Amino acid sequence: MKRILHILSAKEFTEEFRESFLADVEEMEKLRGDPSKRKGLLGFLKDVIIVLFFYEESTRTRISFEIAAHNLGARVISAVNAGIFSSVKKGETFYDTIRTLIGYIPRFIILRHKVKGSAAQAARIVDESGRNVSIINAGDGTGEHPTQALLDWWTIYKEKGRVEDLVVAVGGDLLHGRTTHSLVYLLSKYKGVSFIFIAPDNLQMKKDLCDYLDVKGVEYEKTSDKRKIKEADVVYWTRTQKERMNTNKIYTWVRDLIYRLFCYVDTRYVITAEDADSMKEDAIIMHPFPRVGEITRAVDKNKRARYFQQSENGVLVRMVILCNLYGVKIRK
Amino acid sequence: MKRILHILSAKEFTEEFRESFLADVEEMEKLRGDPSKRKGLLGFLKDVIIVLFFYEESTRTRISFEIAAHNLGARVISAVNAGIFSSVKKGETFYDTIRTLIGYIPRFIILRHKVKGSAAQAARIVDESGRNVSIINAGDGTGEHPTQALLDWWTIYKEKGRVEDLVVAVGGDLLHGRTTHSLVYLLSKYKGVSFIFIAPDNLQMKKDLCDYLDVKGVEYEKTSDKRKIKEADVVYWTRTQKERMNTNKIYTWVRDLIYRLFCYVDTRYVITAEDADSMKEDAIIMHPFPRVGEITRAVDKNKRARYFQQSENGVLVRMVILCNLYGVKIRK
Amino acid sequence: MKRILHILSAKEFTEEFRESFLADVEEMEKLRGDPSKRKGLLGFLKDVIIVLFFYEESTRTRISFEIAAHNLGARVISAVNAGIFSSVKKGETFYDTIRTLIGYIPRFIILRHKVKGSAAQAARIVDESGRNVSIINAGDGTGEHPTQALLDWWTIYKEKGRVEDLVVAVGGDLLHGRTTHSLVYLLSKYKGVSFIFIAPDNLQMKKDLCDYLDVKGVEYEKTSDKRKIKEADVVYWTRTQKERMNTNKIYTWVRDLIYRLFCYVDTRYVITAEDADSMKEDAIIMHPFPRVGEITRAVDKNKRARYFQQSENGVLVRMVILCNLYGVKIRK
Repeated sequence: MKRILHILSAKEFTEEFRESFLADVEEMEKLRGDPSKRKGLLGFLKDVIIVLFFYEESTRTRISFEIAAHNLGARVISAVNAGIFSSVKKGETFYDTIRTLIGYIPRFIILRHKVKGSAAQAARIVDESGRNVSIINAGDGTGEHPTQALLDWWTIYKEKGRVEDLVVAVGGDLLHGRTTHSLVYLLSKYKGVSFIFIAPDNLQMKKDLCDYLDVKGVEYEKTSDKRKIKEADVVYWTRTQKERMNTNKIYTWVRDLIYRLFCYVDTRYVITAEDADSMKEDAIIMHPFPRVGEITRAVDKNKRARYFQQSENGVLVRMVILCNLYGVKIRK
Repeated sequence: MKRILHILSAKEFTEEFRESFLADVEEMEKLRGDPSKRKGLLGFLKDVIIVLFFYEESTRTRISFEIAAHNLGARVISAVNAGIFSSVKKGETFYDTIRTLIGYIPRFIILRHKVKGSAAQAARIVDESGRNVSIINAGDGTGEHPTQALLDWWTIYKEKGRVEDLVVAVGGDLLHGRTTHSLVYLLSKYKGVSFIFIAPDNLQMKKDLCDYLDVKGVEYEKTSDKRKIKEADVVYWTRTQKERMNTNKIYTWVRDLIYRLFCYVDTRYVITAEDADSMKEDAIIMHPFPRVGEITRAVDKNKRARYFQQSENGVLVRMVILCNLYGVKIRK
Repeated sequence: MKRILHILSAKEFTEEFRESFLADVEEMEKLRGDPSKRKGLLGFLKDVIIVLFFYEESTRTRISFEIAAHNLGARVISAVNAGIFSSVKKGETFYDTIRTLIGYIPRFIILRHKVKGSAAQAARIVDESGRNVSIINAGDGTGEHPTQALLDWWTIYKEKGRVEDLVVAVGGDLLHGRTTHSLVYLLSKYKGVSFIFIAPDNLQMKKDLCDYLDVKGVEYEKTSDKRKIKEADVVYWTRTQKERMNTNKIYTWVRDLIYRLFCYVDTRYVITAEDADSMKEDAIIMHPFPRVGEITRAVDKNKRARYFQQSENGVLVRMVILCNLYGVKIRK
């Protein structure tokens, strides 16, 4: 398999990559779960320097990457408020900031930025510089968040035993949510997968992705009725991505105020314990987190709930990604 | 001795725990002070992952914990502005945040939060999850700060050679100060200890702690006269905990403005060099820091001043706590 | 050579120090560039604890120091928003904060503060405490930034093969820029070096440094004409250090607003591709970064541009500084 240099987009996860990845994660899970072998993982990225460079904050992506890195023996430098960095505040360009950072030659730069395409731009600066540095896209605005897509995909595989022949209900703000976009893109590569997109009309799945599915001949249905989840094998629920919407600022401010004051969640799109019970016996419920009420706490006890396992899988999946990019063989 | 899983409250420091702790700190101090043995400490928590998760900032608690962890060879992930974390800002619950963090399986979560009882809640989430994670309470609002209590207690033991038969003067805002509460609680377990509570009437020692002392038959005296420090063996002085008082916001804002503009400290409760000289020859002066003027700089040179040693002890005491929770034997 | 305890000012870089430093950097560059020897560097500061204590933020100084430290196997604690630290906000003095930090006995404190002289004050607190802690000044307001001076100086040496007999054009806000002050001071020690100071009249080189050059008999010329760069062997260009100017607050605020709205850069002091082409064939262009437009992106492709190499040199130079202070011999 061609050696991967950067992780920028879920579009790069070819069938060959995914096959190899499945075997790697399986092996990594064994190594991590075996106390006699866990210590050995510390040699995989021993003393490799990883910089987390986050222009936007993120608890879970950041900490799961850091724990993944430390589990493999790496050294981590965490710059997680880059938006207020001295040089950025002084007016430095993204190019200069990243070019300088690359010049210090960390082995990895894990980048989160609010502008779509910034990870790809960083990768071009690396390639131009000739340095041996890998860029990992940890979210670029309305663009992608490929490691999230990978852990979502792997969670489905692990929990359902397959990715083929599944009815996947995807709910929430489908117009802006990058996690849902990457996941739908990835799952559409498997035969027999069909989608139910559940969202209010003004937040339905974005047109270019629907067009893509049309071209590929993948079946999907748009609806605003959450009761459709009962037809699904996998329910992937998300919150309304308020912070991604580029609407009028005053409007946003007023809406956020109302949300805060009344803890307002659109009740038409809340999954309750009753909703969960209406689902197929062997269906699973996922959520990329954070949730702000769109799945009630009562659902946590439902056997179909898998969102905490999903979040836990983040560490394992990111360990494999780091090893893949560094060129460490996980399987003998 | 029963293995401890979490450190949540000074109430858990039983006599058995404290006896064992004294011997541990003594041994740890020897190991750390001996250049030939210091390197060996790096094996005690080698590659153990510790997450500092602080919703409120704290220079000294944070850095002393981090240095303690590094002295023992651990790996540290520092998330010290959790109050402005992405997921928290988005409206995630404390439960979800902590449950997710536990799922990444760090070995330790050192938690600071502004809400009383949050460390105990985190410990319950751990126990429910079945993960091998230890919670350390690094301050939960008006609740407790047990590692501070332990280092205060140990400083008294080290400097006075005993904890029994001491007159302890405790000054400052005794109504809200969690460090004074935990310390008084801990010291009251020793025979012959009596207290002098020095504070303005509206900030005197809180009622439930006085009731507790009454029941236990521990002697104490309330006064607003700082000159009473001359009767004490130990003077434990604190600043007025402005930020803990739940008073009217506008009032607080105006008062803080006045404090800032005029560097106002209530002079009735400032210990000066003259006050220090009035104390017993072998008395000691302690302060949990930061101070903002309630002990003058001139006192630093007084032989009774021990507050810098006290603060230094934080590293040693926290090294022992980490070893105790991890199950490393410090003494052969 | 006398062992150095702290790095506070470029004034301490004696001829003996610089000679030794050149040989050290040369050797360090070899070790780092040789894959078979690079791993060996991890033993140089193995498990040494380094605290970065930054009251002002700084992307590049911070990350280059952290990568330097990790390359040498050190352990890094990063407190880079000290200005908003809990204890500082509560009103703690600089003395108490630093005295406490020293008490935890990290081996290094790398300090950035907005007040001139604060690193020197920290060093005095160390000396008074008797602890084995080294202070490194990473910028003290309008004072100095000695490690920047060292990397600038070394970049000139490396790129030109000498520091003697050079015409050095220094441009930008010469009244307030601490990097230009330290560099001019350092270069003026070499024979045959002369300066061209290029700045608007109200931001020309500060008087005490000109007086110093007069006394030393070093030649210099003041001008507001950027075309003078064509006479130089080294062009050291800087941005207008807006944030250092102690002018009226409202004025500053209005000016900054104008800068932000119109991306205003004083075009009389912008180096364009055409300007760069007008320079001597073997001249070099340097910049301490960040730039905000005073060197255009088109100049990056000019063979004279060395500012990215200069910034990269930061890691190497800081590795040598850490080794020097710790007492590790780089050369056999």
